Amino acid sequence: MTVQQGLLTIPARRGRALSLKAGEAVQIINTHGSQVVDTWVFNTEDITEFLSSEHMRATLGKLWPGKGDALITNRRRAIMTIEEDTSPGQHDTLIAACDSYRYSLLGCTEYHDNCTDNLHAAMRQIGLVAPECPSPLNLWMNIPVAEDGSTGWGEPLSKPGDYVILRAAMDCIVVMSACPQDMVPINGAACTPTEVHYRKLPVAE
Amino acid sequence: MTVQQGLLTIPARRGRALSLKAGEAVQIINTHGSQVVDTWVFNTEDITEFLSSEHMRATLGKLWPGKGDALITNRRRAIMTIEEDTSPGQHDTLIAACDSYRYSLLGCTEYHDNCTDNLHAAMRQIGLVAPECPSPLNLWMNIPVAEDGSTGWGEPLSKPGDYVILRAAMDCIVVMSACPQDMVPINGAACTPTEVHYRKLPVAE
Repeated sequence: MTVQQGLLTIPARRGRALSLKAGEAVQIINTHGSQVVDTWVFNTEDITEFLSSEHMRATLGKLWPGKGDALITNRRRAIMTIEEDTSPGQHDTLIAACDSYRYSLLGCTEYHDNCTDNLHAAMRQIGLVAPECPSPLNLWMNIPVAEDGSTGWGEPLSKPGDYVILRAAMDCIVVMSACPQDMVPINGAACTPTEVHYRKLPVAE
Repeated sequence: MTVQQGLLTIPARRGRALSLKAGEAVQIINTHGSQVVDTWVFNTEDITEFLSSEHMRATLGKLWPGKGDALITNRRRAIMTIEEDTSPGQHDTLIAACDSYRYSLLGCTEYHDNCTDNLHAAMRQIGLVAPECPSPLNLWMNIPVAEDGSTGWGEPLSKPGDYVILRAAMDCIVVMSACPQDMVPINGAACTPTEVHYRKLPVAE
């Protein structure tokens, strides 16, 4: 895929934060097709309000939000809406962001980039301190769930250039982390994290 | 069921906190059979480490922990083990604790008891401040999940006197809330929250 002008890059294994006004949107593009993007959303006015998977599941009545669904905060309000999703729509709300503990258990003896640290670094970069690491919306992360409740670790079902558009229902800060997981094939069979791209979209007319 | 001597009561709609040393256990009894108990566990030495549903699901590879499973913290360590479970084992890790926002959306115009406030009150009662309201382990809460990811609100499958025994893997604080939900039948068709009972068990010989 040729990267279009005006797009911003989230380098492989890194995170970025973006401020949006209510009505603006972000387009997040899975440039190479199999990159998971851990995503958090905080209310700009009070960052102790944020997208909360456990509150969202209660409101939506399903494990995975899809096109047209609102993303719900820990105060049970819509903070964004999934306006577009060109992928098969398999995202995840069940699994914690990866962290140093995860990589230690996988056998790492030295520092490994991870989504939890990426969240905190991206927030610090805009002068904020995340109140906690909420359970993320893991875009394109494929965690199949069987009726007996067992879960698997699938490869993303997305293809190069798939994107989502998330439109802000209130002023908010979106943090995105291109997941650095390269020890299990959650970012595709090649276990090679890649960069992704995003851009801010104006208020819809 | 006749309440046995030595048992402590969690009154209907209320919460309680209990400190355990490593090796001790708590038996939590669904006295009347259809009461959901929202449960949290914090590391006594550092309460910023706590049972985390999103980390536990990643470790266990399933939505619901069962007999023999460890309860896992946000540092991906075992904090307790489910040593016994006489119920059909349908518990929940998907749904947030109820809170004032939930009851407002259900139409309440005055204060309604809720599990989130019960957590904070129970912690204050032992001189602690919960660092946040983690997504709880909802004992006996029946949230069926279909393969397409849709979730339901079931009635508990437990019967009067069913119990779980949770054994501490480290010094920890267990907080239990007898869920005050009386507007949807999550605590049984009668929508009548009841008291439950618990007791501390010594280190196993």
